Amino acid sequence: MELIYRGKTKDVYELKDGNYMLKFKDDVTGENGVFDPGANTVGLTIEGIGKSGLRLTKFFFEKLNLLGIPTHYLSADIEKSTMTVLPAKVFGKGVEVICRYKAVGSFLRRYGLYAKERQELNGYVEVTLKDDLRNDPLITDEALEILNIMTKEEYKILVDLARKIGEIVKSELFKKGLELYDIKFEFGRIGKDNHIALIDEISGGNMRAYQGDTYIEPFELEKIMLTK
Amino acid sequence: MELIYRGKTKDVYELKDGNYMLKFKDDVTGENGVFDPGANTVGLTIEGIGKSGLRLTKFFFEKLNLLGIPTHYLSADIEKSTMTVLPAKVFGKGVEVICRYKAVGSFLRRYGLYAKERQELNGYVEVTLKDDLRNDPLITDEALEILNIMTKEEYKILVDLARKIGEIVKSELFKKGLELYDIKFEFGRIGKDNHIALIDEISGGNMRAYQGDTYIEPFELEKIMLTK
Repeated sequence: MELIYRGKTKDVYELKDGNYMLKFKDDVTGENGVFDPGANTVGLTIEGIGKSGLRLTKFFFEKLNLLGIPTHYLSADIEKSTMTVLPAKVFGKGVEVICRYKAVGSFLRRYGLYAKERQELNGYVEVTLKDDLRNDPLITDEALEILNIMTKEEYKILVDLARKIGEIVKSELFKKGLELYDIKFEFGRIGKDNHIALIDEISGGNMRAYQGDTYIEPFELEKIMLTK
Repeated sequence: MELIYRGKTKDVYELKDGNYMLKFKDDVTGENGVFDPGANTVGLTIEGIGKSGLRLTKFFFEKLNLLGIPTHYLSADIEKSTMTVLPAKVFGKGVEVICRYKAVGSFLRRYGLYAKERQELNGYVEVTLKDDLRNDPLITDEALEILNIMTKEEYKILVDLARKIGEIVKSELFKKGLELYDIKFEFGRIGKDNHIALIDEISGGNMRAYQGDTYIEPFELEKIMLTK
């Protein structure tokens, strides 16, 4: 097996059968030692956070696969902190799809002239480019098409999928007394038919979950979600 | 008549008959004394630039009115640097509508990972919020609706109008051997039916025009455009 990409929070290997293996690391994004799911830099290392994120990812991806929602997920090995997935082609150099229920984070930084903190956003979806240098700029369906990143038809599918998956995650959190404020997804094209599927992970590292007014850290989120 | 708004490049007065009067000033946007139509600060004062911008605005708005495209324009008095217009209600605290033919300026700053300088953009339209503090953030039709700034139907009308007006300005420039790279519009709701109309101005101050590889300054643009 061959290392093909070293990411901020995980590494990607190509397996001999053509599938990929993701190795979850103990690094999380943030700034100045404070965890922030919206940040672009590795802010701190938390022992065991890789395994914890993988456990939650396994939980959600298996649920999505059962529901017939296309994902890249094949299996997970918690002990080894690895997940086996179908190979996916990302859009351009990668895009992020954010599904928002409450106005916080970059939405508030951008639209603070109008938006109130924690204002209801009803699953509003937006797409940003993965580009650390330019602070992950927001992009419209039209600009995505002009820049040959995705077609408008792909954009529609992607937004619908994000909204659907966001709704599922939100309702799972709700069952445990938690409220989902926002969640960040990655999608890719999979298989010979290039169908759009959820890739990467679903864990505390890419969502903001609250219990009342208290933000729930990724470790705690996994504990709450996976304890019967 | 009563001063109701003091803008960066013009002041707005309310007339006794209910119409508004715009007084074009000799201030232009830019930074460090260099003119930049995309800038948010007054960069320099150029004697006569107000009248010059008004002359070009008069030229374009009269053409648009003749073509049946809704604008706020009623008349202009070049000597007094004033333009009489219908009162308009802006969207939220004001939005800017940019129509792009060649990738330069903020498009390139945002999407430089993909876009090539002067890449063809075919009249791509985007909307930004007027918000100096947050550097005029880009916004999607969906976010505009969520934040009660405009409906998706209004967004479509506005984008269509921007594209149509952009095409007219582009072809007028083309007749004089000039190429339009991008142009920034403002729209408002006018009349009892709240129909969407072009407001503000159309001059060198809100477009980038080139002659070959040479950027044409606002003064020069007016001279080229209005000389038979």
